[in-house]
Amino acid sequence: MNEKKSLRTKVSPELQLSIKHQNRDSTRVRVGGFEIGGNHLVVIAGPCSVESREQLLETARSVKESGASMLRGGAFKPRTLPYSFQGHGVEALKLLQEAKAETGLPIVTEVMSVEDVGLVERYSDMLQIGARNMQNYPLLKRVGKTSSPILLKRGLSATIEEFLGAAEYILKEGNWRVVLCERGIRTFEPLTRFTLDLSAVAVLKQISHLPIIVDPSHGTGWSSLVPQMAKAALAAGSDGIIVEVHPHPEKALSDGQQSLSIDEFRLMMQGLREIAKAVGRTI
Amino acid sequence: MNEKKSLRTKVSPELQLSIKHQNRDSTRVRVGGFEIGGNHLVVIAGPCSVESREQLLETARSVKESGASMLRGGAFKPRTLPYSFQGHGVEALKLLQEAKAETGLPIVTEVMSVEDVGLVERYSDMLQIGARNMQNYPLLKRVGKTSSPILLKRGLSATIEEFLGAAEYILKEGNWRVVLCERGIRTFEPLTRFTLDLSAVAVLKQISHLPIIVDPSHGTGWSSLVPQMAKAALAAGSDGIIVEVHPHPEKALSDGQQSLSIDEFRLMMQGLREIAKAVGRTI
Amino acid sequence: MNEKKSLRTKVSPELQLSIKHQNRDSTRVRVGGFEIGGNHLVVIAGPCSVESREQLLETARSVKESGASMLRGGAFKPRTLPYSFQGHGVEALKLLQEAKAETGLPIVTEVMSVEDVGLVERYSDMLQIGARNMQNYPLLKRVGKTSSPILLKRGLSATIEEFLGAAEYILKEGNWRVVLCERGIRTFEPLTRFTLDLSAVAVLKQISHLPIIVDPSHGTGWSSLVPQMAKAALAAGSDGIIVEVHPHPEKALSDGQQSLSIDEFRLMMQGLREIAKAVGRTI
Amino acid sequence: MNEKKSLRTKVSPELQLSIKHQNRDSTRVRVGGFEIGGNHLVVIAGPCSVESREQLLETARSVKESGASMLRGGAFKPRTLPYSFQGHGVEALKLLQEAKAETGLPIVTEVMSVEDVGLVERYSDMLQIGARNMQNYPLLKRVGKTSSPILLKRGLSATIEEFLGAAEYILKEGNWRVVLCERGIRTFEPLTRFTLDLSAVAVLKQISHLPIIVDPSHGTGWSSLVPQMAKAALAAGSDGIIVEVHPHPEKALSDGQQSLSIDEFRLMMQGLREIAKAVGRTI
Repeated sequence: MNEKKSLRTKVSPELQLSIKHQNRDSTRVRVGGFEIGGNHLVVIAGPCSVESREQLLETARSVKESGASMLRGGAFKPRTLPYSFQGHGVEALKLLQEAKAETGLPIVTEVMSVEDVGLVERYSDMLQIGARNMQNYPLLKRVGKTSSPILLKRGLSATIEEFLGAAEYILKEGNWRVVLCERGIRTFEPLTRFTLDLSAVAVLKQISHLPIIVDPSHGTGWSSLVPQMAKAALAAGSDGIIVEVHPHPEKALSDGQQSLSIDEFRLMMQGLREIAKAVGRTI
Repeated sequence: MNEKKSLRTKVSPELQLSIKHQNRDSTRVRVGGFEIGGNHLVVIAGPCSVESREQLLETARSVKESGASMLRGGAFKPRTLPYSFQGHGVEALKLLQEAKAETGLPIVTEVMSVEDVGLVERYSDMLQIGARNMQNYPLLKRVGKTSSPILLKRGLSATIEEFLGAAEYILKEGNWRVVLCERGIRTFEPLTRFTLDLSAVAVLKQISHLPIIVDPSHGTGWSSLVPQMAKAALAAGSDGIIVEVHPHPEKALSDGQQSLSIDEFRLMMQGLREIAKAVGRTI
Repeated sequence: MNEKKSLRTKVSPELQLSIKHQNRDSTRVRVGGFEIGGNHLVVIAGPCSVESREQLLETARSVKESGASMLRGGAFKPRTLPYSFQGHGVEALKLLQEAKAETGLPIVTEVMSVEDVGLVERYSDMLQIGARNMQNYPLLKRVGKTSSPILLKRGLSATIEEFLGAAEYILKEGNWRVVLCERGIRTFEPLTRFTLDLSAVAVLKQISHLPIIVDPSHGTGWSSLVPQMAKAALAAGSDGIIVEVHPHPEKALSDGQQSLSIDEFRLMMQGLREIAKAVGRTI
Repeated sequence: MNEKKSLRTKVSPELQLSIKHQNRDSTRVRVGGFEIGGNHLVVIAGPCSVESREQLLETARSVKESGASMLRGGAFKPRTLPYSFQGHGVEALKLLQEAKAETGLPIVTEVMSVEDVGLVERYSDMLQIGARNMQNYPLLKRVGKTSSPILLKRGLSATIEEFLGAAEYILKEGNWRVVLCERGIRTFEPLTRFTLDLSAVAVLKQISHLPIIVDPSHGTGWSSLVPQMAKAALAAGSDGIIVEVHPHPEKALSDGQQSLSIDEFRLMMQGLREIAKAVGRTI
C-alpha cells in the first residue's frame, strides 16, 4: 500500500544528482531566430543526403513554403558498409549554405569526427550527433566545447538514462544548448525499421530539462507511417520533429523508402497544425 | 531506383491472402450501443481488478461522468506467481453486472480459460483475451465460436504479423467482431514497464481491416505517462483507449502505480477531446 | 567497495521465498527408466511433427541407435496461422506409441489444451508445455494435477523469473516433476530464428533446483548451427538437449530448415560425448 | 519442399560480395608470439581498469601462471556518465608496459579516440575497439591504417551483419588483422547485464573468415556465471575468451561484480582445458 512513486525516483542516484545540479526546469535552445523547447514547435525537414544542387534547393524552397523551420541534409553519412555512398562532404556543406542563403532556413547536419567539427560548424547552425555516435565520448566532449546548438540522437539501443548520460558529456564541457532526439529503438519487430519509442518523450519531459524532438522517418522506415507518427509525437509532448523529404523519393541515393515527397510533406503539415492547436502550441 | 513499396508487400504471402480474402476495408465492432472502429472513439476505463462493491461502483460512476464509453475490471487475473492475488472470480463478475445496471456502461473483462467462456459471456458485453493468451489457440477458437465482441491484446513480444495471425484464429471460426489492442512490447528499456508501440497502430491501419485501441496503462506502467500516451495513441490513429482507473491507486491490490485516480482520469479526458477534434473524430 | 552479491539476491523476494520453501538443492525427474538432472545427460530427438509411420519409425530407430534417450514428435502443433498444418492429432499419438513399443524410447509430446491432457497422458511419458503456453495458467494448473513429468518451455520473451513463476504454478499443484527448457528468446538479430540464451542455463542452475535442458533447433532455426550450440549447452551446464531430426529435412511439413538429418544427428552425438566427458558427465 | 538453405544465402548481397572478395577461408591473427584463430585458444585476462602498479602486476603474474596468453587492462574507460572514473590514461599504459616487461604477456587495451591511436599503439600489442565505438567510422578507418592487430567488440545491439560491416571498414584500409569479439547483446532480461549471444560465434564461423573470441565477463555481468559461459563459448567454436580478473574484485573501481578473483580464474582454466581437449584444440 505504498504511495505512487515518481519516475524520478527510478533514475540512478548519480544521474538524479546531475539533473538536480542543473537546477533548471526546462531549457530552451535558440537556433537561428528559432527557439526549440518553447511554445512553438520546430519542424526540421530535408533530404537524407545532399545529392545535388537541384535536389537540395527544390527541397529547401518547398519545405520552407510548407512551414518548415529548419533544413536538414547529410554531408557525411555513417553507413553500415564502407562500400555504400558516404555523402558528398564539403561540397554538400556548401550547397547547404547556399540553400540557407536563399531560403533563410537554419541548417542542421551531422558531424561524425572530431576533426570535422570546426568545418561543419562553419557551414551549419546546429551540429547533429548521430545515433551510432551517441557514446562517442571524444566527439561529445569536442562539441561540448563549441558554442553551437547540438542535436543529440538517441542510440539504437540506448536506455533513457544512457541517453541523458551522453548529454551530460556535452553539458559538462559548458555547452548547454542540447536538443535530444528520439529516433527509434531496436526491437524484434521486423515490419518497421525501428520501433519509435514515444514514451521516451513523455519520460524525458518528466526527468530532464532538455528539449526533445522526434524523427519518425528513421523511427519507422516507411514514409506512409510518418504523418501519423509525427502527429503522435507532438501529442506525446515532443518539441518538434525532424523528417526526411525528397523531391523524388524513389530515386534517392539513401533512405528513399522513408522519405516524404514534397506533396506528402505539405499535406502532413496541415495535420500537424491541428494537433499543435490541440496541445496548446503553435507550429 | 525502385518505386516506394507498400507496407502490405512486406507481409507474409499467407497472411496477405487472408487479409485479401476478408475483403473488407474496415470493420466496425458494436458493443452495447457503441461502435468501435467508427468515427467516435471508445474510452474503456476501470480498475485493474474488481476489489469491492465500493471501489467498483465509485469508479464506474465517475468514469461514466467523465465520458468513458465502457467499464473494464478484472475478475480472473493472470499473475506471474501463483501466490499473488488471482482476482475475485464470479463475485467480481456479479459486481461488474451491478455496475452496468447502475451506469449503463457495457462491460469488458478477461477470460483466461476455455471452461469459463460461457460464464464470462453471461456477465459481460465483450470478452478480453489477455496478452499472455494471445497464442492460446484453444481459447481463441472457443471465443471464435461465440457471438461476443472480442478484445484481443497483443502478446508482449508478438510481431504484428503474429498478432494478426492470432486474430485469424477467431475470425476463422466465424466471429468477425474482433478489436485489436496494443499494450506495450518488451524491450531493453528499464524505466517503463513495457514500450508502447504506437507505430503498430499506424501499421495495422494500413494492413488490416480490424479496429485497434491502445492500453497506455500497461504499456507504460506509470500513471504519470498515461495522459500523454493516450493523446499520442489517438493522434496515431487509434480507435480508442483502455485505461486503468482506481479511486485510491495507492491502495490498489494490483497495478496501483499505473492507475489513474478519478481526478486524473477526468483531466485526461479534457485533453483527449482536443486531440479527437484535431484528428476529425469525436469522443 | 561492496562485497560481491549473489545472483539470488537479485531475484524478487516472493520468488526467493518460494525457492527457499522448496528446500531442495537439485531435483531429478524420472521419465521411463531415465533420470533427468542427474549425472547422465538426456538427449531427446525426433521430428517437429509426426508426419507418417515411415517417417516416425525411421527416425525413432536411427536416433535410438545413435544414442538418444527419448523420442519427441508433435501431434498437436501450435501454428501462427490457422491455415497452416496443425498436426495429425490422435493418429500421431498412436504412431508415437508404436514407435515406443518398437524402440523402447519414452515419448514426449506437446499438449495444448486442458481438455487434451488426459488423452496425451495416455499416449506419452512426458507432457510438453510449449513456449506460447508458458503462461497459460489453466493449462499449467491442469498438468500440475497429473503425475506426469512436465517439460516446460520458456516463453519467447519470458524473463527467467517469469519462467520460474510459471513452473511454480505446476509445483504448487503438487507435481514436482518439472524440467525447464531454454529454447531461444526474441531479440533484434534477424539471421537466427531466435537467440539461444545459454546464460539462462547457468543462471537457473544457481537460483533454481529444477533440471534444465536446451533446444538448439528452435533456438537457432538452422540445422547447421545445432551441433555447435548443443555442445555449448552441455558445456554451460545443461542437463540435456532436445533436437529436431527428420529423415528428409528438405521435405518436412514444418521446420525443415532447422532439422538435422539422421546422419547429422549421429555425427553430432559423437561430438557431444566428448563434451560430456569434459564436464564430468555421461551421455 | 525446398532444399535446406545455407546461412550465407541470408546475408545481404553487398556483404556476401565482400566476404567472397576476401577469398579466405579463415584468417589467423598473430599477436606477440601468439596466433589467434588457429588450433591454440587464446585466453586474455586482466582487470577492467588499470588501478595501480600492485593491482596490475599481481594480476599479470597470476594470470600468466594460470595459463593466460595475453593481458588486458583499461587505460581509457568509456563510461555512461562523465562523472565516473575515466581511467588513468598514459600512466595506465606505462604500467601495462611494465607488466609486459615482467611477464612477457602481450597487451591489449582500448583506444577511444583517433588522436590516441598512435599513443596506444606504442604501449600495446593489440588495439581494442569497444562496443560503443563499433560504428565510430573515423576510428575504424584510423586503426585500419595501422599495422596493429585489432580486437573489435560487437556493439550492444549490432546485428551480426552490422558487426561484419564494421570489420570491413578496417579491412578496407588494408589492415587484415581483425579479431571479432562477442560481448553480450541487449535484451529484455534483467537478471544478467547483457545476454551473451553464443550463436553469433557459430554463425560467424559459417559466414566470415575472421577469428572470434567471447567476453563472458561483460556478457553476463556476474563472475559466478563466467566459468560456465567461458566453457560454452569454447564449445560453440570460439577461438578464445577475454575475461576480467582482479586480485580483490570487491574493491574494484569498476565492474567488480563481474571480475573473477585470481583463484577463480585458476580454477576456471582447469575446466577450460578439458573443453579445449573435447573440441580438439589446445589452450
